[in-house]
Amino acid sequence: MDKFKVTFLPDNKTVEVERHRTVLAAAISCGIYINSACGGDGVCGKCKIILRKGVLSSPASGMLSEDETEKNYYLACLASFESDAVIEVPQESRIDLEAPKSPERGEQAEEIRIPEGNGARHEKLLPLCEKMYLQLPAPTAQDNISDLDRVYREMDKTGKITSPTTALVNVRTLPRLLRDSEWKVTVTIARRRTRSEILAFEPGDTHAKSFGIAFDIGTTTVSGQLIDLKSGAVLGTKAAYNRQAAYGPDIITRIIYSQKREGLKTLHDAVTDTLNLIIEGFTREFSIDLNTITCVFIAGNTTMMHLLMQVDPRHIRRDPYVPAFNSFPGVRAQEVGIFINPRGLLYIAAGISSYVGGDVTAGILACGMDTAKELCLLIDIGTNGEIVLGNSEFLIATSASAGPAFEGSGQSCGMRSASGAVQKVKITGKTIELDRIENAAPRGLCGSGYISAVAQMFARGILDKNGKLVPEASDRVRPTSEGLEFVLCRKGEMDAARDIVITEADIENIKRAKAAIYAAVSILVRKMSFSIRDIKKIFVAGGFGTSLDIDAAIAIGLLPDADRAVYSFVGNSSLTGARQMLLSQELYRVSGHVAGKTTYLELSGDHEYMDEYTAALFFPHTDIDRFPSLKR
Amino acid sequence: MDKFKVTFLPDNKTVEVERHRTVLAAAISCGIYINSACGGDGVCGKCKIILRKGVLSSPASGMLSEDETEKNYYLACLASFESDAVIEVPQESRIDLEAPKSPERGEQAEEIRIPEGNGARHEKLLPLCEKMYLQLPAPTAQDNISDLDRVYREMDKTGKITSPTTALVNVRTLPRLLRDSEWKVTVTIARRRTRSEILAFEPGDTHAKSFGIAFDIGTTTVSGQLIDLKSGAVLGTKAAYNRQAAYGPDIITRIIYSQKREGLKTLHDAVTDTLNLIIEGFTREFSIDLNTITCVFIAGNTTMMHLLMQVDPRHIRRDPYVPAFNSFPGVRAQEVGIFINPRGLLYIAAGISSYVGGDVTAGILACGMDTAKELCLLIDIGTNGEIVLGNSEFLIATSASAGPAFEGSGQSCGMRSASGAVQKVKITGKTIELDRIENAAPRGLCGSGYISAVAQMFARGILDKNGKLVPEASDRVRPTSEGLEFVLCRKGEMDAARDIVITEADIENIKRAKAAIYAAVSILVRKMSFSIRDIKKIFVAGGFGTSLDIDAAIAIGLLPDADRAVYSFVGNSSLTGARQMLLSQELYRVSGHVAGKTTYLELSGDHEYMDEYTAALFFPHTDIDRFPSLKR
Repeated sequence: MDKFKVTFLPDNKTVEVERHRTVLAAAISCGIYINSACGGDGVCGKCKIILRKGVLSSPASGMLSEDETEKNYYLACLASFESDAVIEVPQESRIDLEAPKSPERGEQAEEIRIPEGNGARHEKLLPLCEKMYLQLPAPTAQDNISDLDRVYREMDKTGKITSPTTALVNVRTLPRLLRDSEWKVTVTIARRRTRSEILAFEPGDTHAKSFGIAFDIGTTTVSGQLIDLKSGAVLGTKAAYNRQAAYGPDIITRIIYSQKREGLKTLHDAVTDTLNLIIEGFTREFSIDLNTITCVFIAGNTTMMHLLMQVDPRHIRRDPYVPAFNSFPGVRAQEVGIFINPRGLLYIAAGISSYVGGDVTAGILACGMDTAKELCLLIDIGTNGEIVLGNSEFLIATSASAGPAFEGSGQSCGMRSASGAVQKVKITGKTIELDRIENAAPRGLCGSGYISAVAQMFARGILDKNGKLVPEASDRVRPTSEGLEFVLCRKGEMDAARDIVITEADIENIKRAKAAIYAAVSILVRKMSFSIRDIKKIFVAGGFGTSLDIDAAIAIGLLPDADRAVYSFVGNSSLTGARQMLLSQELYRVSGHVAGKTTYLELSGDHEYMDEYTAALFFPHTDIDRFPSLKR
Repeated sequence: MDKFKVTFLPDNKTVEVERHRTVLAAAISCGIYINSACGGDGVCGKCKIILRKGVLSSPASGMLSEDETEKNYYLACLASFESDAVIEVPQESRIDLEAPKSPERGEQAEEIRIPEGNGARHEKLLPLCEKMYLQLPAPTAQDNISDLDRVYREMDKTGKITSPTTALVNVRTLPRLLRDSEWKVTVTIARRRTRSEILAFEPGDTHAKSFGIAFDIGTTTVSGQLIDLKSGAVLGTKAAYNRQAAYGPDIITRIIYSQKREGLKTLHDAVTDTLNLIIEGFTREFSIDLNTITCVFIAGNTTMMHLLMQVDPRHIRRDPYVPAFNSFPGVRAQEVGIFINPRGLLYIAAGISSYVGGDVTAGILACGMDTAKELCLLIDIGTNGEIVLGNSEFLIATSASAGPAFEGSGQSCGMRSASGAVQKVKITGKTIELDRIENAAPRGLCGSGYISAVAQMFARGILDKNGKLVPEASDRVRPTSEGLEFVLCRKGEMDAARDIVITEADIENIKRAKAAIYAAVSILVRKMSFSIRDIKKIFVAGGFGTSLDIDAAIAIGLLPDADRAVYSFVGNSSLTGARQMLLSQELYRVSGHVAGKTTYLELSGDHEYMDEYTAALFFPHTDIDRFPSLKR
C-alpha cells in the first residue's frame, strides 16, 4: 500500500497516510476536526477543503459549485489521496474552534482508580463494534458476484454476521478500494439491533487498531474507560466532573434549566464537552487516532440520557413522570456531538423509568442480579441513589436524591477517587493516619474518605449524633466564620499543599445523603415484605474510591447493619455494565429485557419514606435497635 | 387541531397548515423545495429560512449562529408553526432552481397505457411503507412508560411491526406532538430489512393519504405508477424518455460516458431528473402533496441502478463483468436526489448479474415464474432484451443488446405507447387501417405498431426478406435523400399532423433488434437442452403498447414459432413486479432469494450466439423450417 505525506494548512501539521484514506480521516488522525455533520455521507457539504498541492481523487458531488471545483475545493469525506499533498482547511469547515465544544485550555480529564466490578458475568467476547480483516478471492468469470456481495459472503463465513448493510457512500468507494488494495480489506462492523452495519472499509489489515469507550454519565461525575475491542482489555479509566454541574447540582435543577431559552442545548453541549474531554485525554495518553474509536457505550440516569440526546426532559418531573424514551438503538455518535470516528456509533443502556435509568440496568447486569438465585440488593450511591432488590425471578428498583457529597462534589475539600484522594482515615488519640490513593500527598477526600472520616470522628466523640463537632474532643476542631471545622491534615503534613478540613456543612451533606439512601433501602425491603436478614448479597456501588470500609458505612448509618459477609463493594457498577455490554452483543440484547422486567417503586410523596428519612438524620439512626452490631 | 395560514416569500404562495407541521413540510406541500440534504435530521443546516411574521417553535440547533438566531433564522426541518406566519426562503436554501434538477420548461411526463400484467400473484396487501393511525391511552401513574414505548406498544398490538426504531429527530419532537395532539397520531412506518422504521409522526389521523410510486427505469424509457398504499390501487401511469439517452443509446455508451469528468454525476442527475419529472406529473394531476409520497420502488437493469445510486459502473463492462452491488436496503430517497417526503425511502429490486438486473427479478415475480410448476419463458423486449427460462425449480437468464427500436426511440416516427400511437396496422390492397391508442389522430408508431406494420408489409410483398422496400409493390413507397420509405399515413389522413413513415433505416433497426432477441431465446433454450415445444408458457414483456399481435411478432421472426396458446403479452412486467413488491413485504423478501437463485448465462463472445444472430438477420429467418406455421 502506498503511503503519502500530507500537510494540513494553516496548522502546518504533517501526517503519513495510505492511499484511499479520506482527507477527513487524515485530518482527524492529526487532531484537526473537520465538520462532517452527515457523518461522512457526502450529503451535507460542510467538509470543504482546498487542495494546494498534489492529487486527490473524488467521486463527483453536487455539493460543490463550478467555481469551487475550479478553485480545487473538495469534500474531505469523499476525496482520497493519490499523491503527497498539501491541504488547506478553511475556518468555516472546522468544528467550532473557539467555542465550548473544545476543552477549556489546560483542562484535563483525570485518571481515576476504581475497583473491578463483580466478575460474575463471563460473556463471550463479541463487541458491538468490531473489525474484521478480509482476504477476498479476486473475481473470475466463474465467480463474478458483485463487489458488495463478495464482501458479505466472506463475512458470512465467520457465522457472526446477520443481515449486513452499509451506507451508500461506502458502496460508492468500494469498487476502487477493493481493487487497489488487491482484495485485502478491513471492515468495521457494528451491531444495530437485528442487523449488522459495515461502518467503514479500510484497505489492508488494520484490525489490530479497534477501540471503544464505555461511559457512565452521572449527574456529578462522568467516568470513561478506553477498551481494546480486540482483546476486551481496559486500557485506561478517566473521569471528569460533569460540566452540567454549573447549571444545577441535581437532576431536578437541570430539568428546570433545560426549559430556559437554549437551556437544553447548553446542557447538551456541557455533557458532550465532558465526554469529548475524556476522549481527548485517552487519545493523547495512548497516542490513539480518533478514527480507530468506532463506538461509545453510555449508561446514565434517564435525565442525563435526555440531555445527552437533546430531548426535552420536562415530563420526567411532571406527574405521572413519563420519559420521552427509555431505550434507543445505535445512533451515529457525531449526530449527538461526540467526536470519534465520524461514522462511529453511540449506544445507550436501556433505562427503566424516569428515575431509574440505564445506569441501574448496567449495574444489575454487572452484579449478575438478573441471573442470581438468591435475594440480592444493589445500593448505587451517587447524586441520585438507586436501590434494586431482586434476583432472576423479580427485580424492583427505586431511587432517592442524595446530593453529590459522596462524589466529593459540593464539599469543602472533596475530590474524585484520583491520586492523592484520602479514602480511609484512622484516628488514634492525637494521631491521624490517612490512606491516600497511590500514597500521594493528600489533596482532598473522596466519598469513601468522608465515610471513613465521619465514622472515626463519631467513634472518637469528635462528632455527636446530630452531626455537630465537639471542640472539647480534639484540638483539631477550630472555629471559622462559617462555623466549626475539623482539620484532618495540616498544610505540610504528608506534603499536603493546603489544610484539608471537614466542615459542619460537609457533615450535614453527608448526613442527608446517607439518610436518603438508608431510608430508600429500608422502605424498598419492607414494602416487598422482606427483612435485611433475608438478603444474601448486598452490592454497594458508587464512585467513592478504590475501596469502601463497610464497617464505617454501617457505623454512620449509610448501610443497613447486615452480616458483613453479604456485602461486597463493586465500584462503579454502571461503568462496568456499560463496558460489559460494549463487549457482548448477547448482554446488550439481554439488557433490554432486564430493563423491561424491572419494576419501579415511586417514593416521592410517600409518607413512610419521609418518616424514614427524618428518622435517619442522626448518626447512625434515631432507632439504635436497627444497628445491633453497633449497640454491642 | 389548530390550522394556520402560512405564506412563503418571495414566491408569495399561501398554504393552510396544522400546528406542528414543520416549515419544511409546509413548503414542500406548496411546491417549494427546500434543501434538506440530511433528510430532515437537523444536522446539515442547509434548510435555513427566515421568519418574517408569526411564531415558530423549534428545538435549539447548533447549526445557526447567534447572529442568524437574532435575525430570526430557523431550520425548516426543525421549526413548526405556533401561529399564522410569513416565511422567507432564501435562494441558498433552495434546491438548484435554475439547474437541470427541475424539469425543463413545458416538458411533461406523458400518461401511458400498459396492459395489466399476469395476475398470478395474490400477495396480502402489506406495503413496504404504510401509515397507521394510533389512539394512545394517556399516561397515568399506573401506566407511565416512555412516550416512545407507548407508541411502540400500540403498534405492537397490530402484530405487523417488528423491532421498531426511529430517528433521533423524531424522538426530539415526540413529547410535545403527542400531548398537543391529545395522544392521537399517525405514524408512517417503513420496512427496512429486519426492522421497521417510523419515518414520521403526524398529529391526528392522516392515514388515508399515503402514496408510493413504482418505477421501471429502462435504458430508454422510464415508467412510473402512482399507487394508493392504503388500497393498493394504481391511480395513474406515466412515462418519459430517460434523459440519459442524450449521452448514449445503450448501457455500454452510458458506462463509457460515466468515465468522463463529472460524467457519472451528469448521468445520475439525468435519471433523477426524469424520475422527478414523472413524480411532478403525478402530484400535479392528482393534486397530491409531495409529503404524502413516502416511498419509491425502482426496478431497472444493473447499469441503470449504478447510475441512479451514483456508483461507478466501469467494472460492469470489464471482464469478468462485476457490478459493485446487486441489491441495496432502503435508503433515503433524498440521498439519491429523488424528491418525495424528505424522510421517504427508496427501494430497489435485487439484480442478478451485471447484465440481468432487478427489472428481470421483478418480471419473474410478476409472471409468477418462481412458483410455476410448468416450464416458462419470459422474453422482456427493451433496449436490453432479457430472456429467462425456468420454473420453481430453476431459473436461468441471459441478455442481448437490442437497441431502442421497440421502444419507439431512434426511429423516424417512433413514440411511446401513449395517446395517438399506432399499435396495429392492417394493409388490404391500397387500404391501410391503423389502430391507435385512444383512437386519437395518429402521431407515430409504438413498438407493437412497428411489429404489426413490418409483418403486414412483409406479408403484402412491400418488404423483402432482407428488409428492403419493394417500390413496385405499393405506391406508398417513395424515395428520399436517405433512401426509400413507406408512407403509412399521409398528413391529414385520420387528422394526422404529419406524414407517418417507416424508412429502410427503421426496418434495419427492427431487424437487428428482433434478431438479437430471437437468437438469445434460441441459444438459451438449446443450451438448457430443451426445445421450444417443451415450454408451456411464454410471457412477452415490454413497453410496446397496450397489446401485441403475437402472430405478427412471429411473422417477423422476433418470437419463436410456438403454439399461440402458450403466449401471453404481459406489458411492462418490470413495472408490475416493482409495484407488487412495493405492496408486499413478503414479495420483497422473496425477491432477494429469487435474484440469488437465478443463474446468468453470458452470451458475449459466444460463437453460437453470433451465428444465431447472423442467421436471424432475415424476415423471418434464413432457416424457414424454424417457422413451420409460416411455411404452411
